[in-house]
Amino acid sequence: MNATSTTWQHRERPLRLERRLDFADYARTRDFLEAVAKASEATGVYPDISFGRTYVNITIHTEPPATDIDPERTAFAERVDALFASEYDRRPSEPPCSIPC
Amino acid sequence: MNATSTTWQHRERPLRLERRLDFADYARTRDFLEAVAKASEATGVYPDISFGRTYVNITIHTEPPATDIDPERTAFAERVDALFASEYDRRPSEPPCSIPC
Repeated sequence: MNATSTTWQHRERPLRLERRLDFADYARTRDFLEAVAKASEATGVYPDISFGRTYVNITIHTEPPATDIDPERTAFAERVDALFASEYDRRPSEPPCSIPC
Repeated sequence: MNATSTTWQHRERPLRLERRLDFADYARTRDFLEAVAKASEATGVYPDISFGRTYVNITIHTEPPATDIDPERTAFAERVDALFASEYDRRPSEPPCSIPC
């Protein structure tokens, strides 16, 4: 077991990691995608990503004939987890101003 | 027939427009995604998008019980076409310097 086993789905045929992430609004979705893009350029790991207004699905494929998720991809998944947990996971959208802003 | 009928796939159940776009490199993929995000915020049309290092799939869903693609979504598709044609469709990656840069 490693840190990603509680946050990512380990799938077979083809071997991959999958995770869905939900966001309070489109601005946060965009922010997060920007940060993941920077992580891809920094690590050379380019997951397949699908997203809509307030969700992101990330799929990290392995290179055949891999029989396990390699450390590089596990590290990328952990980096995504840390990014999401630190910035997007808890804070709801800012409440509308109850007093005139 | 309208401008999108040659570039987008018109799909049924659910009614939607789909297009796949390929890019020379990740920098261009990212650039394009950024421009589409701005178009979404400007128009309020938020397609489902999936992408990898050098491809983007865009799906523009309609709101049931729509029986045709509405003008707003057709306009968004045309905007994506214009964006792609103007910036990304022709220029291959910069050729490596044949003489020392």
